[in-house]
Amino acid sequence: VRRLSVLAWVPDFARGLVREHRVRWALEEAGLPYEVRELREVDQQSPGYRELQPFGQVPAYEEDGLVLFESGAIVHHIAERSPALLPPSPAGRARALTWMFAALNTVEPDISNLATIDHFASGEAWAPLRRPAVVDLVKDKLDIVARRLRGRPYLEDQFTAADLLMSSVLRILRYTDLVSSVPVLADYCARIEARPAYQRSLADHLAVFARNPPPPGVTA
Amino acid sequence: VRRLSVLAWVPDFARGLVREHRVRWALEEAGLPYEVRELREVDQQSPGYRELQPFGQVPAYEEDGLVLFESGAIVHHIAERSPALLPPSPAGRARALTWMFAALNTVEPDISNLATIDHFASGEAWAPLRRPAVVDLVKDKLDIVARRLRGRPYLEDQFTAADLLMSSVLRILRYTDLVSSVPVLADYCARIEARPAYQRSLADHLAVFARNPPPPGVTA
Repeated sequence: VRRLSVLAWVPDFARGLVREHRVRWALEEAGLPYEVRELREVDQQSPGYRELQPFGQVPAYEEDGLVLFESGAIVHHIAERSPALLPPSPAGRARALTWMFAALNTVEPDISNLATIDHFASGEAWAPLRRPAVVDLVKDKLDIVARRLRGRPYLEDQFTAADLLMSSVLRILRYTDLVSSVPVLADYCARIEARPAYQRSLADHLAVFARNPPPPGVTA
Repeated sequence: VRRLSVLAWVPDFARGLVREHRVRWALEEAGLPYEVRELREVDQQSPGYRELQPFGQVPAYEEDGLVLFESGAIVHHIAERSPALLPPSPAGRARALTWMFAALNTVEPDISNLATIDHFASGEAWAPLRRPAVVDLVKDKLDIVARRLRGRPYLEDQFTAADLLMSSVLRILRYTDLVSSVPVLADYCARIEARPAYQRSLADHLAVFARNPPPPGVTA
């Protein structure tokens, strides 16, 4: 049995972006069934959950006694078991892992910094002073990803877990025109979001929020 | 033949922290010989280097026609070939990869943000306004890592590539007392830095800077 921890409710701006979705999507690509454990904020702080996920974040993933966290590591674990997510050759797998780390460790940090400014710090005095340089850092990274994708449908020879992660990272910028205004990036995201496994995983992800009320004191 | 790209010269504050060092260290732990290619800033911008490393960063790694970048991915590639860096069981390897991603994707981004403020933005108006909240984020992450290490010499049952990366990330804070003032973290770093492979890799890393002059216009 595979079990994934997911958030019970998030506001609109975060829907489709919570990191558990990356794992749901990988499981759909691999055709592996799973159960979910819905977490409220109080559950994330509980000692029991911290045993599974020391940082209290989602997702945590349980599979026959193995407990993993970090969406990058969980996606890799699933991808190693599915030709839909990694090529068979060791060299191809190493190249895909290179792009997985590039997505999460080189591209995502700047994008997260921009999203933090825009979603959580817009009223703070430092935010408008810092924002222009962060936008420039994001543009530099996007420019390099776009150059890589020119003439290629995917980062490597086939769709891999690296495209799953890279497109998920780019999607954080959907509230801006930083990706949508660059045709090669917009096409890449559209091509990947047309995948049936993406669509199914997104529908399942959103269904949880539709079913649950917002936490006390939050208006939906 | 293994070949690693390294920077020809960096200022004192960055010595021992450049990401190529993480790969040098992994190669020493695994007992694998390698050559280096020393890069000046102009080399990082060259189309030839961008073919190897699209972001123009170090390190890039070449091994019998396979080209990898992202220190996390290269360290993982080396670790898969060495019992000194990963346990034999698939479950143990998946757990180690979980902590590798935790080091690079959950702990390092906040620490990098603090180091960016302190090393590159200290004269900017936004920096002192933003800094206290970044310090709090860093402390929260350090507290969780410290809790994990209480009563354990390593993140998992043995030293793995995850400890190599986590201790490398913690070392970024050596110019502060954020790590050195927490005994369990200070002991963890000291235990790991006593490893002969760490010492050898650091000596080789520093020898390059000792041999090369700073770039024109920079005083050493």
